[in-house]
Amino acid sequence: MKVIALDAHDIRFPTSRQLDGSDAMNPDPDYSAAYAVLRTDDGAEGHGFTFTIGRGTEVCVAAIEAYAPLVVGLDIDLSDLGGFARRLIHDSQLRWLGPEKGAVHMAAAAIINAAFDLAGRVAGKPVWRLLADMTPEQIVDLADWRYLTDALRPEEAVDLLTAARPGRDEREAALLATGFPAYTTTPGWLGYTDDKLVALAREAVADGFTQIKLKVGGDLADDVRRLELARQTVGPDIRIAIDANQRWDVRQAIEWVEALKPFDPYWIEEPTSPDDILGHAAVRRSVAPVRVATGEHVANRVIFKQLLQADAIDVLQIDACRVAGVPENVAILLLAAKYGVPVCPHAGGVGLCEVVQHLSMFDYLAVSGSTENRVIEYVDHLHEHFTDPVRVRDGHYLAPTAPGMSAQMKAESLLEYAYPDGAAWRS
Amino acid sequence: MKVIALDAHDIRFPTSRQLDGSDAMNPDPDYSAAYAVLRTDDGAEGHGFTFTIGRGTEVCVAAIEAYAPLVVGLDIDLSDLGGFARRLIHDSQLRWLGPEKGAVHMAAAAIINAAFDLAGRVAGKPVWRLLADMTPEQIVDLADWRYLTDALRPEEAVDLLTAARPGRDEREAALLATGFPAYTTTPGWLGYTDDKLVALAREAVADGFTQIKLKVGGDLADDVRRLELARQTVGPDIRIAIDANQRWDVRQAIEWVEALKPFDPYWIEEPTSPDDILGHAAVRRSVAPVRVATGEHVANRVIFKQLLQADAIDVLQIDACRVAGVPENVAILLLAAKYGVPVCPHAGGVGLCEVVQHLSMFDYLAVSGSTENRVIEYVDHLHEHFTDPVRVRDGHYLAPTAPGMSAQMKAESLLEYAYPDGAAWRS
Repeated sequence: MKVIALDAHDIRFPTSRQLDGSDAMNPDPDYSAAYAVLRTDDGAEGHGFTFTIGRGTEVCVAAIEAYAPLVVGLDIDLSDLGGFARRLIHDSQLRWLGPEKGAVHMAAAAIINAAFDLAGRVAGKPVWRLLADMTPEQIVDLADWRYLTDALRPEEAVDLLTAARPGRDEREAALLATGFPAYTTTPGWLGYTDDKLVALAREAVADGFTQIKLKVGGDLADDVRRLELARQTVGPDIRIAIDANQRWDVRQAIEWVEALKPFDPYWIEEPTSPDDILGHAAVRRSVAPVRVATGEHVANRVIFKQLLQADAIDVLQIDACRVAGVPENVAILLLAAKYGVPVCPHAGGVGLCEVVQHLSMFDYLAVSGSTENRVIEYVDHLHEHFTDPVRVRDGHYLAPTAPGMSAQMKAESLLEYAYPDGAAWRS
Repeated sequence: MKVIALDAHDIRFPTSRQLDGSDAMNPDPDYSAAYAVLRTDDGAEGHGFTFTIGRGTEVCVAAIEAYAPLVVGLDIDLSDLGGFARRLIHDSQLRWLGPEKGAVHMAAAAIINAAFDLAGRVAGKPVWRLLADMTPEQIVDLADWRYLTDALRPEEAVDLLTAARPGRDEREAALLATGFPAYTTTPGWLGYTDDKLVALAREAVADGFTQIKLKVGGDLADDVRRLELARQTVGPDIRIAIDANQRWDVRQAIEWVEALKPFDPYWIEEPTSPDDILGHAAVRRSVAPVRVATGEHVANRVIFKQLLQADAIDVLQIDACRVAGVPENVAILLLAAKYGVPVCPHAGGVGLCEVVQHLSMFDYLAVSGSTENRVIEYVDHLHEHFTDPVRVRDGHYLAPTAPGMSAQMKAESLLEYAYPDGAAWRS
């Protein structure tokens, strides 16, 4: 199968008009995607994207286009998508712009995930099953092991995957029956009024969620008031995670979390820079038993490796399309399993729920083998733009069954929200 | 003074044709620049760029253009360039593409350095003197202190700068008389023959250099042969640094350096991923007394902070335009001074020597106060394209005296090497 085109689209939704997604660092995001379509000579397509928040989406689009010479014309071997990914990531001239971080890495994520979407469609399987049906050796070969072997060697990873095989069929049956646990951030945006927070928190509990999340870090008095309100609303048994979106220095993070401890926060997410491994470790030592979570802005597996080596996190939050797509996330899932840290993906934005659920379901079936203390973030925004939108029931993601990675946006949405010429932006 | 335009140019030199710049990770770089010009309503201009190696330069150009709405039309306050830099770096939508790393951060470097070039021209001073003439408080205010205060607080930095003031006039006199020490990488590219290596190493010593650098990490037997040849050529008193350009995992780095120890390498540069703080620390513990150096690909001050906190490096290598220009490099120089680690800048490429010399000279006058064990990399490539090229004499960079940051390329070079339409690329 030959790739005959790599299309790149700049898609933006004007979410800032309602303050959906507003947090202490990102007051007015317009949820966006640099969206890639791999087209092949037999008519099959793969769709993928990287998530952005408005300005700069065009930079990721330019980065997707920069990879086109490596992709267009290629006879793509769908049984060696690890090799396909490494072909992009190891291009020395493009690698210079990272390495393995920023716009080029995010663009690679869009293209590599599109290749997995394509492989799922060709195999007639959702990507969670495509991955879970691979042998341990095939799974291990997806990852780029460069820079990982001081923490985990490929042979160890094969052993780990082999040890996880018993019970797989029972887990798949449970997944298909019940789905994968979710939590919701819908109540928690900083731009929402107290009344809206209370109403949405109450609704979340009624909908079966056992964990919600609140944004914090703008103003301490506001955070105390909002967290107290939320705790009163949901009672003592619902977990409330808090999320500072990188707002603090280390000392400030420790003091702020201390002030919120009376309301029993379950985890503090992104207390400081996502690059600050030692800072996260210092925060974790000080704020226990509040857990430390991070990952949505972690650039690559090398930073995740160190967060685990340094005992810096209690909860590892993968993002489907900031690191270089499925293969790098497979490496990260393997690292997390080795270190015994649960993976709770970042989602929300646009399309992140759709894509990342495949990775958690694969993790459950083939890697960690558990859903204990594992939840996928859920936000009820923009799902209507996808051809295979997530289905969340009673606080769980139901397993997608359509072939592919659920990444495809509807053709009419691609037209309407095209930036700057779509109808949504022309007005 | 109002900014009326921000021009962005894609400039590429076909250096891969001669294998200049070839190393174990970058076999065929075309030295390039995403080049920015700030134009103002009184006719003054500022020039800056970020260094790239070919494909993908257009992504950085797109990122420069993405910042234009924040810059064009601005009344630029040349007495608050820290504020100017933070305005760009803190833009939440563009920050999402990093944060503070990759193409957007490199683009910010180009623009922010252009603003310092402009300020130098307006003040009639080279930037090294512009900075050294500031008060400690003004210098400290350039930096973005977010994420740094667990390692260094602004008040401590003021004390550090105040303590460095005695002897400043003598140091300036010495700088103007002798210049700042340099070392050369000209002999060491992997693509060069043994004969060329020997001839260039001999020439380096004759030219007054006391340190040279060799690229390693492609093939161990080749490295042993080349390092032995180099050591035979320069004798025991010339320092030979080696540079693996991120080629190894931790264990491999340790074994490889062990095999090269008989030839007394002075430092091992970039033994592994630039993101791997803990990896560098492990390598350093094992390879001593060989020093560990890194920095040219370190994304930002948060990673540098941790390299220092973790005792991971003996030599800190700033790059003029990968982190966000002068202000972030000022923060890094202050961190290095606090931890007592010498700064030896990365240079070479195109224009890096021209720009980074200003930072080392400022460091000598106002921050560390020393040139001991401090050398700026020098490579004799592409200086002819600059209006104020570096002058290296007897192994020292002579202090530039023209106003600005020596960043301006000649107009005819901008035309000839414009990609893809310049004469150099049309053939």
